[in-house]
Amino acid sequence: MSQDQKERLYLFDTTLRDGAQTSGIDFSVAEKVVIAELLERLGVDYVEGGYPGANPTDTEFFSEKRTQSATFTAFGMTKRAGRSASNDPGLQGLLSAEADAICFVAKSWDYHVKVALGCSNEENLESITDSVTAAVNAGREAMVDCEHFFDGFKANPGYALACAKVAYDAGARWVVLCDTNGGTLPDEIKAIVAEVREVVPGDHLGIHTHDDTGQAVANALAAVDAGVRQIQGTLNGIGERCGNANLVTLIPTLMLKPQYTERFELGLSEAQLKDISAVSRTFDEMLNVSPNRHAPYVGETAFATKAGIHASAILKDPQTYEHVAPEEVGNKRRVLVSDQAGKSNLLGELARLGVEADKSDPRLDGLLAEVKQREAEGYAYEAADASFELLARRALGDVPSFYEVQSFRVMVERRHNALGELVSVSEAVVKVDIDGETRMSVAEGNGPVNALDVALRKDLGKYQSAIDGLELIDYKVRILNGGTGAVTRVLIESRDTRTHKRWFTIGVSSNIVDASFQALNDSITYALLKAEAA
Amino acid sequence: MSQDQKERLYLFDTTLRDGAQTSGIDFSVAEKVVIAELLERLGVDYVEGGYPGANPTDTEFFSEKRTQSATFTAFGMTKRAGRSASNDPGLQGLLSAEADAICFVAKSWDYHVKVALGCSNEENLESITDSVTAAVNAGREAMVDCEHFFDGFKANPGYALACAKVAYDAGARWVVLCDTNGGTLPDEIKAIVAEVREVVPGDHLGIHTHDDTGQAVANALAAVDAGVRQIQGTLNGIGERCGNANLVTLIPTLMLKPQYTERFELGLSEAQLKDISAVSRTFDEMLNVSPNRHAPYVGETAFATKAGIHASAILKDPQTYEHVAPEEVGNKRRVLVSDQAGKSNLLGELARLGVEADKSDPRLDGLLAEVKQREAEGYAYEAADASFELLARRALGDVPSFYEVQSFRVMVERRHNALGELVSVSEAVVKVDIDGETRMSVAEGNGPVNALDVALRKDLGKYQSAIDGLELIDYKVRILNGGTGAVTRVLIESRDTRTHKRWFTIGVSSNIVDASFQALNDSITYALLKAEAA
Repeated sequence: MSQDQKERLYLFDTTLRDGAQTSGIDFSVAEKVVIAELLERLGVDYVEGGYPGANPTDTEFFSEKRTQSATFTAFGMTKRAGRSASNDPGLQGLLSAEADAICFVAKSWDYHVKVALGCSNEENLESITDSVTAAVNAGREAMVDCEHFFDGFKANPGYALACAKVAYDAGARWVVLCDTNGGTLPDEIKAIVAEVREVVPGDHLGIHTHDDTGQAVANALAAVDAGVRQIQGTLNGIGERCGNANLVTLIPTLMLKPQYTERFELGLSEAQLKDISAVSRTFDEMLNVSPNRHAPYVGETAFATKAGIHASAILKDPQTYEHVAPEEVGNKRRVLVSDQAGKSNLLGELARLGVEADKSDPRLDGLLAEVKQREAEGYAYEAADASFELLARRALGDVPSFYEVQSFRVMVERRHNALGELVSVSEAVVKVDIDGETRMSVAEGNGPVNALDVALRKDLGKYQSAIDGLELIDYKVRILNGGTGAVTRVLIESRDTRTHKRWFTIGVSSNIVDASFQALNDSITYALLKAEAA
Repeated sequence: MSQDQKERLYLFDTTLRDGAQTSGIDFSVAEKVVIAELLERLGVDYVEGGYPGANPTDTEFFSEKRTQSATFTAFGMTKRAGRSASNDPGLQGLLSAEADAICFVAKSWDYHVKVALGCSNEENLESITDSVTAAVNAGREAMVDCEHFFDGFKANPGYALACAKVAYDAGARWVVLCDTNGGTLPDEIKAIVAEVREVVPGDHLGIHTHDDTGQAVANALAAVDAGVRQIQGTLNGIGERCGNANLVTLIPTLMLKPQYTERFELGLSEAQLKDISAVSRTFDEMLNVSPNRHAPYVGETAFATKAGIHASAILKDPQTYEHVAPEEVGNKRRVLVSDQAGKSNLLGELARLGVEADKSDPRLDGLLAEVKQREAEGYAYEAADASFELLARRALGDVPSFYEVQSFRVMVERRHNALGELVSVSEAVVKVDIDGETRMSVAEGNGPVNALDVALRKDLGKYQSAIDGLELIDYKVRILNGGTGAVTRVLIESRDTRTHKRWFTIGVSSNIVDASFQALNDSITYALLKAEAA
């Protein structure tokens, strides 16, 4: 087949909706905004942002359109039986959300229609038809998630098919077959998709799988093999119970394995595929979880070999030992310490950040060595662009020494006050040199890091106006290696309230206050550097 | 089919051999002995113990038979080309190992025969034949792992098939088709297995898969569907790169899904299946890794649902929402405690934690209100069972006041020392009342939380021996709502080094030190409560 004849596969990301059902995950609006940006960087076709009207976070998130190129999608229920679409506040709330598309969840198992909805099978079909029609009439792309589709099909194939068919007939761009409880096996998926294609064309069918038998990815691929053309999944496979289909695993298989590349094309570029390891790790950093070292394609050990019978052969002849080349997914082969790819990766990162560097500049070797040394200590620059840019510019000699912190002291005291109430007081003292002049500042805060932050920014003399808009908006801490010999990594997200620009800085130390200080200091220095350049 | 007519599927565990290739894993002989016992408890048919002769650990491990019922299997290379079986020290070493079976690894890709072995295709076939013959003559069950079989088949099907055939013809009980680099997809596995069955019967074929495309489990099942009757895998899927097929995931699918139960039987009893969650977690404890909460079937959240549209329906009618019953794999249903939790959820959680409560007890309403209030403040009890249990037991009046912290003070100072070096010192002072007696402790730490932890546990008088084994193994910090009015949530994972029990506690405050103090305090109190009950 020529390039033109390839069929398009669409990626539908539900990290912000079904992924938000993950135990222990609770996204704020600000986090959703950052994750939506990450999803666009990855290159998915649809970003499902949540369920406007269901909770204040999702309602606020849908108060404006949050994507540039991906189709911004709101999730919600079909209209209730017994009232018209125009008289259903839930549906009207969905229609008023600032979304490009609406994905309705609909029951397709007659048993659940009866027990959970308490309406008739006919009424449920009407709800699907009327909801899709209302969305289409409101100028939205409409789609329908058929909940428990495979179990419903096994119980009553005629009714499950009727649900899919009325959705399609009403104008749904996609009818998505959901293996809601994750228990269906690949061969069942294939057989049932084949039957659904009798009533809905494959290029209007989607698949939504869960990992309850460890086969979310295999089930999604089985559905593609059987004819569906939209795949739902999440970043790093987060999701309820055992998680959803992992888009980070699916995308490389779809873009690198001949079985798929010969027939299909996705909306991602090769450059975006090369960025997928970084996207995956950045998301883990946002969630404050350790990346899965064994993750397919993107894990730290996905292309690692223990020294042994294979190691030297791999170095001589990697393509006969590796199923894909690690570079294609932005990962690295790990057999020896020395890494030939290091310098070109570094140049790519500098170009991405707009740091000019000549590839023959000998200072780049020093920078590369320093990055490796620091990453061995626990720094993770993938999630801290601003700290990485400072490190690079310092190595290349173009960061002025704006100020120098001579010393600081932070104290937290918890005790009974004069009224007999237990209170905590946090206080920080900072001594800073600017142009040879020493300034001391003291501040209280609602915790030691806040006190240190306030004291540090209280009096930077001539630089004060440049950091007026600086605001610390997120602060994450992770303990590396566990136990008492642990190292603490702090990641700080800052914002300039005037320009709305955000940046991330990092600090690593066995002492959480020291690590926080490094990240705070980098954040201020970065702000001053950008103010100077502006 | 009647019970008698079912075909037997055999489970071959390679945790101690291929699993030992996992980055970061290095088993001692003593660990191998304990893991072999765990594998017999699980009920696998074969335990592959390692490669005697390749290293002192494996040689010692094979100095005696280490299994009772499972077939104890040694792994090793086929004899070298150019020397006879009786004159090959590696093969003779294998034959002298105290093993029931020998699994030879053989090249089946002609390219690797040439490049890695440096012998002719014919010589390699002779090595397979002679090695299998030697093992059979020595009274061992013989099998052959055909390395890179699927890639080899794609490159030269005739030669790959010849390798499989000579192994079978020489008397190998099993010819195992290995997807060594993990890149093969399920449909390829099926198609190639079908071709192999033309030369080797399915009940003499095994499958060995890796998770490099996230489909190790799907590939193993595809091979079973295509006719193989032995499955190789590891406990919890450990293994090189992305890991091997996870037996803990495969076993429940094979024993609970009608597609498999109607046709096959395994060597495990239903009681052993009920024990599989415990086996999986025990293995993680041996490896000192946190169990994967999202693992299919056995993960802590594998049957968990966040309160929402599904929660009340699941409690009423679980079998239409769960693909298998959690009890069958020794796991539990969890409807997560959350701000939408109702009283029945709460009672379910209390029962799960072993907290006795009468559903008419009016104190439950107070507890429910308190949980909701605290979750609104930022507590997330779904990730902190120990803090939740303390909260519940306090509401029900059965947590003694072991000790009371009157006050504490924590200080971090960063300054130049006498040598002009920048150093940080963290110090904590804690004042504790026990039975009316006040004790003051002071400690330094590698950060304020560590100093506070050490000071808090330094002198708890009569309780000291009960917390001797207490260890803080993970510490997570999350900032809720961002910005300067932010609330900090601290989650601490603790362990008793004597019992290997782990528990999670939580603290929430605008002050990170206060939040940490709450979680530390809960951890110690929980340890004392459990010590008292023991």
